[in-house]
Amino acid sequence: MDQSTLRQLLDEVASGAVEPDDAVRRLQRLPFADLGFARVDHHRALRQGLPEAVYGPGKTADQCGAIVAELLAEPGGPVLLTRADQDQVKAALAAAGAAGHDDGVVTTAGSRAAVVWRPAPARAGRVLVVTAGTADLAVAGECRAVLGALGFAAELVADCGVAGVHRLLAVADDLAAADAVVVAAGFEGALPSVVGGLTAAPVVAVPTSTGYGAALEGITALLAMLSSCASGITVVGIDNGFGAACAVARLLR
Amino acid sequence: MDQSTLRQLLDEVASGAVEPDDAVRRLQRLPFADLGFARVDHHRALRQGLPEAVYGPGKTADQCGAIVAELLAEPGGPVLLTRADQDQVKAALAAAGAAGHDDGVVTTAGSRAAVVWRPAPARAGRVLVVTAGTADLAVAGECRAVLGALGFAAELVADCGVAGVHRLLAVADDLAAADAVVVAAGFEGALPSVVGGLTAAPVVAVPTSTGYGAALEGITALLAMLSSCASGITVVGIDNGFGAACAVARLLR
Amino acid sequence: MDQSTLRQLLDEVASGAVEPDDAVRRLQRLPFADLGFARVDHHRALRQGLPEAVYGPGKTADQCGAIVAELLAEPGGPVLLTRADQDQVKAALAAAGAAGHDDGVVTTAGSRAAVVWRPAPARAGRVLVVTAGTADLAVAGECRAVLGALGFAAELVADCGVAGVHRLLAVADDLAAADAVVVAAGFEGALPSVVGGLTAAPVVAVPTSTGYGAALEGITALLAMLSSCASGITVVGIDNGFGAACAVARLLR
Amino acid sequence: MDQSTLRQLLDEVASGAVEPDDAVRRLQRLPFADLGFARVDHHRALRQGLPEAVYGPGKTADQCGAIVAELLAEPGGPVLLTRADQDQVKAALAAAGAAGHDDGVVTTAGSRAAVVWRPAPARAGRVLVVTAGTADLAVAGECRAVLGALGFAAELVADCGVAGVHRLLAVADDLAAADAVVVAAGFEGALPSVVGGLTAAPVVAVPTSTGYGAALEGITALLAMLSSCASGITVVGIDNGFGAACAVARLLR
Amino acid sequence: MDQSTLRQLLDEVASGAVEPDDAVRRLQRLPFADLGFARVDHHRALRQGLPEAVYGPGKTADQCGAIVAELLAEPGGPVLLTRADQDQVKAALAAAGAAGHDDGVVTTAGSRAAVVWRPAPARAGRVLVVTAGTADLAVAGECRAVLGALGFAAELVADCGVAGVHRLLAVADDLAAADAVVVAAGFEGALPSVVGGLTAAPVVAVPTSTGYGAALEGITALLAMLSSCASGITVVGIDNGFGAACAVARLLR
Amino acid sequence: MDQSTLRQLLDEVASGAVEPDDAVRRLQRLPFADLGFARVDHHRALRQGLPEAVYGPGKTADQCGAIVAELLAEPGGPVLLTRADQDQVKAALAAAGAAGHDDGVVTTAGSRAAVVWRPAPARAGRVLVVTAGTADLAVAGECRAVLGALGFAAELVADCGVAGVHRLLAVADDLAAADAVVVAAGFEGALPSVVGGLTAAPVVAVPTSTGYGAALEGITALLAMLSSCASGITVVGIDNGFGAACAVARLLR
Amino acid sequence: MDQSTLRQLLDEVASGAVEPDDAVRRLQRLPFADLGFARVDHHRALRQGLPEAVYGPGKTADQCGAIVAELLAEPGGPVLLTRADQDQVKAALAAAGAAGHDDGVVTTAGSRAAVVWRPAPARAGRVLVVTAGTADLAVAGECRAVLGALGFAAELVADCGVAGVHRLLAVADDLAAADAVVVAAGFEGALPSVVGGLTAAPVVAVPTSTGYGAALEGITALLAMLSSCASGITVVGIDNGFGAACAVARLLR
Amino acid sequence: MDQSTLRQLLDEVASGAVEPDDAVRRLQRLPFADLGFARVDHHRALRQGLPEAVYGPGKTADQCGAIVAELLAEPGGPVLLTRADQDQVKAALAAAGAAGHDDGVVTTAGSRAAVVWRPAPARAGRVLVVTAGTADLAVAGECRAVLGALGFAAELVADCGVAGVHRLLAVADDLAAADAVVVAAGFEGALPSVVGGLTAAPVVAVPTSTGYGAALEGITALLAMLSSCASGITVVGIDNGFGAACAVARLLR
Repeated sequence: MDQSTLRQLLDEVASGAVEPDDAVRRLQRLPFADLGFARVDHHRALRQGLPEAVYGPGKTADQCGAIVAELLAEPGGPVLLTRADQDQVKAALAAAGAAGHDDGVVTTAGSRAAVVWRPAPARAGRVLVVTAGTADLAVAGECRAVLGALGFAAELVADCGVAGVHRLLAVADDLAAADAVVVAAGFEGALPSVVGGLTAAPVVAVPTSTGYGAALEGITALLAMLSSCASGITVVGIDNGFGAACAVARLLR
Repeated sequence: MDQSTLRQLLDEVASGAVEPDDAVRRLQRLPFADLGFARVDHHRALRQGLPEAVYGPGKTADQCGAIVAELLAEPGGPVLLTRADQDQVKAALAAAGAAGHDDGVVTTAGSRAAVVWRPAPARAGRVLVVTAGTADLAVAGECRAVLGALGFAAELVADCGVAGVHRLLAVADDLAAADAVVVAAGFEGALPSVVGGLTAAPVVAVPTSTGYGAALEGITALLAMLSSCASGITVVGIDNGFGAACAVARLLR
Repeated sequence: MDQSTLRQLLDEVASGAVEPDDAVRRLQRLPFADLGFARVDHHRALRQGLPEAVYGPGKTADQCGAIVAELLAEPGGPVLLTRADQDQVKAALAAAGAAGHDDGVVTTAGSRAAVVWRPAPARAGRVLVVTAGTADLAVAGECRAVLGALGFAAELVADCGVAGVHRLLAVADDLAAADAVVVAAGFEGALPSVVGGLTAAPVVAVPTSTGYGAALEGITALLAMLSSCASGITVVGIDNGFGAACAVARLLR
Repeated sequence: MDQSTLRQLLDEVASGAVEPDDAVRRLQRLPFADLGFARVDHHRALRQGLPEAVYGPGKTADQCGAIVAELLAEPGGPVLLTRADQDQVKAALAAAGAAGHDDGVVTTAGSRAAVVWRPAPARAGRVLVVTAGTADLAVAGECRAVLGALGFAAELVADCGVAGVHRLLAVADDLAAADAVVVAAGFEGALPSVVGGLTAAPVVAVPTSTGYGAALEGITALLAMLSSCASGITVVGIDNGFGAACAVARLLR
Repeated sequence: MDQSTLRQLLDEVASGAVEPDDAVRRLQRLPFADLGFARVDHHRALRQGLPEAVYGPGKTADQCGAIVAELLAEPGGPVLLTRADQDQVKAALAAAGAAGHDDGVVTTAGSRAAVVWRPAPARAGRVLVVTAGTADLAVAGECRAVLGALGFAAELVADCGVAGVHRLLAVADDLAAADAVVVAAGFEGALPSVVGGLTAAPVVAVPTSTGYGAALEGITALLAMLSSCASGITVVGIDNGFGAACAVARLLR
Repeated sequence: MDQSTLRQLLDEVASGAVEPDDAVRRLQRLPFADLGFARVDHHRALRQGLPEAVYGPGKTADQCGAIVAELLAEPGGPVLLTRADQDQVKAALAAAGAAGHDDGVVTTAGSRAAVVWRPAPARAGRVLVVTAGTADLAVAGECRAVLGALGFAAELVADCGVAGVHRLLAVADDLAAADAVVVAAGFEGALPSVVGGLTAAPVVAVPTSTGYGAALEGITALLAMLSSCASGITVVGIDNGFGAACAVARLLR
Repeated sequence: MDQSTLRQLLDEVASGAVEPDDAVRRLQRLPFADLGFARVDHHRALRQGLPEAVYGPGKTADQCGAIVAELLAEPGGPVLLTRADQDQVKAALAAAGAAGHDDGVVTTAGSRAAVVWRPAPARAGRVLVVTAGTADLAVAGECRAVLGALGFAAELVADCGVAGVHRLLAVADDLAAADAVVVAAGFEGALPSVVGGLTAAPVVAVPTSTGYGAALEGITALLAMLSSCASGITVVGIDNGFGAACAVARLLR
Repeated sequence: MDQSTLRQLLDEVASGAVEPDDAVRRLQRLPFADLGFARVDHHRALRQGLPEAVYGPGKTADQCGAIVAELLAEPGGPVLLTRADQDQVKAALAAAGAAGHDDGVVTTAGSRAAVVWRPAPARAGRVLVVTAGTADLAVAGECRAVLGALGFAAELVADCGVAGVHRLLAVADDLAAADAVVVAAGFEGALPSVVGGLTAAPVVAVPTSTGYGAALEGITALLAMLSSCASGITVVGIDNGFGAACAVARLLR
C-alpha cells in the first residue's frame, strides 16, 4: 500500500465514500514495505495484536539494522529483535539510534539477546512464568522480555521442578490467582501437568532443550507436554519463549 | 476427605473459626472418592474450572458406568464421557439413568462418541472451530460437543484448507471478530499459520491424523503447527478436540 | 548337563572330591533341556533368583504346553506363562494338569493372561504398585501377578495421576514407608518423577502404551521417565509389568 | 570411450556406416574420464540436459580444481562448483584459469559459494524463486546461481511467509503467469501449499533448515511439503537449491 | 461468489466496465459452494489447471456422493473420486447418475478405486509410468487413471527394478524420448536415480509402501529419492500416484 | 533377448565367430520375459548365482501363478515363492503342476509359506542357523527353506539367547567349525555379537520383529546388530530370512 | 519454611504438642531456600535419602558457587556438583572454601568433573561397576564418584564387552556375589543382558554415547537395554552415571 | 590365563595328558591381559581370525599407546589402531617403537588415521572396493588399509554412482570376477543394489555419511541398503570401513 493509495483511502473515509469500518478492514489486510530481502509488515499489530519481531538467526547484522529501522520509521507499537548475537544487537541499536530511537532495551538470555524498542504501555493481567530448573531461566528470560514489550510485568517463579513438588505447592495460591501461566521445563517436561491441575487459568507450556539421559534436546519434554493428562494445556515449540509470550498477549488482549 | 472431616470444616466456617477463603482453598486441594480402580476427583471443576471427563479407551464398560454414576452422585457441573465405544455409551447411559440422570446427550464423532450430562449454562464468547478438510470433522465434532458441555455454542467453519486460500479469506471478518479460534487440520497442518495471521484472537491448533503421502498419522501436522511462523499460536495433541475445548474454556473463563 | 554328569558331580560332592561351593557354581552355569524348539533353563532360579517365564506371543499353544510341562517336571520354584492368549492358557493348563500340576492360577490382564504354578512362599517386603490412571491397570495386574508368584503381596494404589496431585499426596506416608515402588504410567509419564521426590525407596518406572495426543504408544512416557529430574529412578520397557516385578525381586532378595 | 574408439565411431558416421542417430545414442551412454579419485562424466549434459556439477563437501581443494579443469578441458556447456568453501573456490578458479577459463563467477550463499563457468546462453521461460523468509535467501541464492548457469534469469520474490498471506497475494498475478515456481521455506513449510493453490504452473518446493521450535533442521518443512493438500506440488531435499534449479531445467527444456 | 455477484460481474464485462482479463483474475480467486461439511471449489481448474478431486478416506459415502454431484452440477472439466471404498464408489456413481452423469469410469487400484467423470480431451505429451516391481502396480494404476482423466494416455513400463538393471536399459531410448517420467518404487527407492541418469526429461518419483527388511512403509524409499545423486529429480508423498499425475499435468500444460 | 537373437548367438559360438566366454558375458546381462505386469529375469541365476524368487505380498494369486509358471517354463535352477498366503500357494502349485512341475515343497513359516521347485543339488558347506528364542523360529524356517532350495542342509540351533549364555557356549565348538552362521534374534539383538566373538566364520545377523518393551518391531535389534562391538558381522533387513540365505549362498559359492 | 515456623514446630515437639513422627513427616515435605534463580531443597536427603546435586550445564559459575554454598551452610550429608566445567569447579571450590568447607574432592570424567563435599560415612554393600569398553570409563567414573559420596566404595571391572565374553565369565563369581551391579555399555548395549543372566543381584544398566555405525549417540544401547531378554534389568538415561549411583543408593539403603 | 596355567597346559599336551585339539579349544576361550582400563584380548586372532583393533575415539593418547604396546609384546598377527587423531597416532608409534616395532604404517582417511603393525602375509582373493562418489574415499581408504593389514590387496573403483550407471557397467566384468565386493555409498545408497545385480560374489554394503537433502548423516543410505531389492546383500554400520574389511576377512578365510 503506497502513499497515494493510503491517502486516497483516507480521503474516501473523510468524504463518507468509505465507511470507517471498511477502511479498517482493508488496512488490516494489505500493507507492507518491500526492502528487497524482506517484506516489512507494518500493520501486523493492527491485524494480529502483535508487533513484527525480527528473528536474528540467518540474517546479516545489516539486514537486522535495516528492518528495525524500517519498522521504527512508521509510528506504531513495540518493535522487537530476538535471538540476536552481539553484532546484530550493535547494528540494530545503531540503526535505531540513527533514526532517533535510542531507547532500545537489551535483555540477554543465554548466549543470545532480545532488544525492545517502544514498549507498549502497561496492561492489566497477572502473568506467572514458572520454570522447572535454573537452566530454564534463559527461555523464561526471553519470554519475560517479550511480555514486557507487550505491556505485561510477568512474575518469575524459578526452580519448581516436580522432584520436589512441595516447592510448587508453596505457590499454589499464586497459581490459582493468575490470569495466565507460562511453564518452561526441560527434562521430562512434567511441570505443566502438575500446574494445570492446580489452576483454572490458561497454561502455556514451553518445552526447553535442557536435560540429559533421554531428553533429546527438548523433544521428550515437547511430547510429554502434548500428551499431558491435565486438560486444556497448550504447547508452543522448543525454547520458544517468544511464542509463549505472544500466546499470552492473544488471550489477555 | 471423608464426611466427618467435611462436616467439621463447615462447622468451623459456620463458627468463624475458619475463614471462608481458607475453606475454599482447602477444598480445592483435597477431595476424591476412591472406587478401587479409580480415584474420582469431585472438586476438579472448582480447582481447574473443568469437569472430570472419563476417557473411554482402556476402561471396561462397567468401569465407565461406575465412574459416571459416581460423578453424577455429587451435585456439580458437567460430566463427560469421551471416545467411548457403543458398549461404553450404553453402560454409562444406563448407570446414569439408574441414578436419575437420563439427560445424557450423545455426539458421534467418527467411530467413537462423546456423552454429556448436566451441561453448563450458556456462556458468552464467540468461538470458531475451523477445519481444513471434511475428514477433520470428527475431531471438530468432539471439540464442539465438549465446548457445548462447557457452555459455549461454537460455530463450525468447515473445509477451508490453504490450497484454496480464498475459502478462508471469505471468513476473514469472522476470524477477526472471534474471541477464540480452534483450527483442526491434518496433512501439512498449514491452516493455523494462515489463520494466526488474520486474527488477534487466541488460536488453538489441533493436528489431526488425516492425510497421506508423508502425513505420518498427524505427526507432520503437529510438527508444522509447533514450528509455525505465525506468532502466538498454541498447539494440543493429535486429534485432541477435547483438549482444545478445555483450553478455550481456560482462556474464556 | 545330562543325568550321568549330574550323578557324577553329586557323587564327587558326596566323596569330598568336590567342594559343595564348587558344585553350586558349576550347577549355576550349565544345565538346560533341549526340546528342539526351545532350550529350557532349569537352573535359572538358582543363577538369577528368578523363574523361567514362558512368554506367549510367537509360540504355538502346543509349544507353550510342552515348555511348561518340562519346567514343572523338575522340582523347583514358580513357573510362569505370560501374555498368553486363551488357546495358550488352555494348552498350558492341560499339559500341567497331565503332569500332576493342577494348581495353575490365571490372572487376566487386558486381552492377555498370566498363569502361575508353584508360587513361591510369602516373602517380607512392602511393595506398592501405583498407577496413573485406570487404563494402566492391565500392566499393574501383570506386575502384581508376577510379584505374587515370587512371594510378594503387592499393594495396589490406582489412579493417582499428576493432574490431581493431591490424590498422590494422600498416600505420601505409604510411599515413604515402602520397600519398593513400581509406578505404571502412560500419557506424559510424569508420575514416577513425583513419586521419586516423595520416597527414598527404589522406584521402578513402567511406561505404558496408554494415552493419546502425542503419547506414541508409550514412547513419550518411556523417554520422559528416562529423563526424570528425580534422582535414582530406573525404568523398564513399555508395558513390561513382568520385568518390573522381576526387578523388585532382584532388589528385595 | 578412449580416443581411438571415438575416432572410429565418428569415421563410421562420416562414411555412412553408422547412422547419426545411432551415434548419438551410443555417445549418450558411454564416456567418462577416470581421474583415479573421480570418474568425470563428459556427456552428462547430452544425456540429462544438465551439466556435471562438482559438489564441494568431502573433496579436497586439489580434487575440486582437478575435476573442474578436466570438465573445462572438453568443449561443452556450463560447469559448476557448488557448496564450496573458500579454499575450494580458490583452487578451482586457479585450475580453471590455468586452463584458459578465467570467467568463473562466484555467488556466495551463506558460508558456502557456487562458481559457474561457461554459462548457457539465455533461455526463455519465466521462473520465480519465492522465499518464506529472509533466512531462506541463501538457498534461494544457490538456486538462482544454478538457474543462471543454465540460462534462466530467475526472479526473486522474498519474504512472503503465510503468516502475512497478503504479501503473497500481492504477487498472485506473477505466480499465475510464471512458467515454473521454486518455493523455499523453512519453519512449517506451508508456503508451497498456498502458492500451489494460486498457480497452474509447476511448483518445486525446497524445504530449508531455517526455523526453530520443532522445525528439526528442515525435517518438518520437508514432511509438510510432501503432505501438501495442494495437488501436484513436487519436493526436493532440504536446502537443495541446486536440485530445484535442475528440476526446473528438466521441465523447461 | 453468489449468483448475483456473478451476474453483475458478467454484466460489467458485457458493458465494458470491466476488462475481460480482470474478470478472469477475479474469478480465479473467489468462488466455492458451501455444502456445510465441504466447500466445493468450482474454479480450481481455472486457477490451478487441475480438477477438484474428492479424496475418499474420512468421508461418509453420502458426503462423497453429494460433493461429486455438486461438482458435476457446474459445467467444467474432469471430476475425480480417489481412494474410494466400494460403498463410496456406489454412492458417488448413484449421485452422479441421478444428476445425468452416468459416464463414471472406475479403476481399481489395490483395495481402493478411482472414479473419473468428464475426462479431459486427449492431450499431447509422451508420459511414461515406470515401476520397480509388480507390487507397485496399484500406485501406478492410480497415477495412470488420473493422467487419463487429465487427457494423457500414459504408457506403463512395469518391473524394472535396479537389481536387474538390464531390464531398464532395454527401455533407455523410450526414457530419453519421453516428455515426462513418473517412477514408482518401494524397497530402497533407487530406480529414480538410475532413470534420472538416462533421460533429460522431468522425473517425478513416487515412493511406495512396498518392501520389507527396513523399508519402513515407504519412508526409506522416500528419503532415498530425496537424497538422490541424480540431479533434478523431484518427489511426491508415499503412494501418491494422484499427486504425481497432477505434477505431470502442471509441467505439460 | 528373443528366440532369434539367442539362436544367432549360439550359431556364432558354434561357428567360432563368438568366443564362448563372450557369449556367457552377453547372456549375463540381457534376457528377461515381459509378462506385462512383470519382467521375468531368466538369467538371474547365471548372473547372481541366485534364483528369481517371487515375493508374494502385493501380487494377486494369479500373478504369482503366472510368474512361477514362466520361470519353470525355462530349464534352470531352483524357483521360489516366498511369504505367500494360502491362495497364492494354491495358485502357484496349480500353475506349476499344469506345467508339469508337481514337485513344489511348501514350508510354513508363521502365517506365511515358502514354496520351492527344482531345488539345487546338495552343496558342501556347514551352515548353522542360530536363534535367540522360540519366537524367532518362523524367520529361521524361511531361511532354512531357502538354503535348502539352494542346496544347503542348514543345521538349526534354537533358543540360545544371551540371558542364558551357557546355552550358547554349549555349541561353541559347532560355531567354531561352521562355514557360515546365520543368527536370528529379536529383543535387544545381542546374540550375533556373542556368536561373532566365538567363531571366525562369516556371521550374517537377521534382526527379527519379536520382542516387547522397546523392541520397536525389530528396529532395536537391527540397530544393535549394526553397532555390534564384534568385528566383521554383517546384517540384513528385519525378518529377512530369505536375504540371509542368499547371502550365505553368495559367500559359499 | 522460615526460621520462625521451624522454631515453632520444634517448640511444639518439645512441649509434646506435636508428636516427633508428625514433625518428621512435615519436615519431609516443606523446606527449601529461595535464592531467586534456584530453590535449594535442604531436606531432600531426609525425604529421598539422596543429596541435592547441582547439575552444572546451563548454570553460570556464580550460580554453581552460590547453590553449593547454600547447601553447605546447613548441616547435613554429602553435597555434589556434577558435569561441571573448569570455571564452575573453580567457583564452587572457592565459594565452599569461603564457607569453611575446603574438603571438595574433584573427579574428572571426560571433559567434565564431579566435585564432592562432606562424603557420607562408608556403607556396607558390594557394588560392581562393569564397563563394556575403555571408552565407557568416563561414565563409570562419574558413577563411582557419586557412589563414593554416598558411602560406597564401588569396584571397577573394565572392558568386558560381549565380543570377548570370556573376559566377563572370568568375573562370574564376583558378579554372583555382588549386592548391586551397574553396567555401562555403548555400541549395541548387550552387556547388561549377559550380566543379568549371571547374577541374581539388581542390575542397573547405563547406556553410553560411545560407539559408531548405528549407535546413534547411545539411543541404540538404550533401546537394546530396555528390550533385554534378561529379566529384571532396569535402565537409566544415556551417560547417566549419576542416576545409576542414586538408584544403587535407593536399593541398598 | 596366567603364565603357570599356560605352562601346565602345554606340559600336559607334551605328556599326552591333554589332546592338542583340546588345548587349542581351551586357548581360544580364555586369555587376556588386564591393564586396569582395558582387557587386552591376545587370542582374538585365534578365535575370530581377526586382530585386536584399538578404536581411538574415547581413549587417551596414553591408553592407545599402552594397549598397542601390550598387543605387540606378544608374538602374533597384525595390530591395528583405527580412527586415531594425531596425538593418538604419535603416542602409539612411540610406544610401539620403544617396544622394537617401528614398522607402523599410517593411512590417513579424512581427519582420522589408521595405523598398522605386523601386517599379515599376502593372501589370495580378489577384493574390489567400489565407491559411489569421491566423498566416500575416506571410508574406502580405511577399509583398504584394514584389508591390507589382513593380507588383501584390494582394488579401488572410485566414483561409480548410479546417476551415471554406464560408469559402473564399464567394470561389470571385474565385478563378475571378484571374490568379494565392498560398496561404499552415501546419498540414496543405491549402488549396492545395482552391483548386487551384476555379480554373484558376496557384496558388503557400507553406508557413508556423505550426502545432503535427506541423507540424514547416512541413515538414509543405511535403510536403503537394508531394503535392497537385490538378494543376498549384507550391510555394516555407517562409515564402518573397518567392519566391512573384517567381514571380507571372515568370508575369504
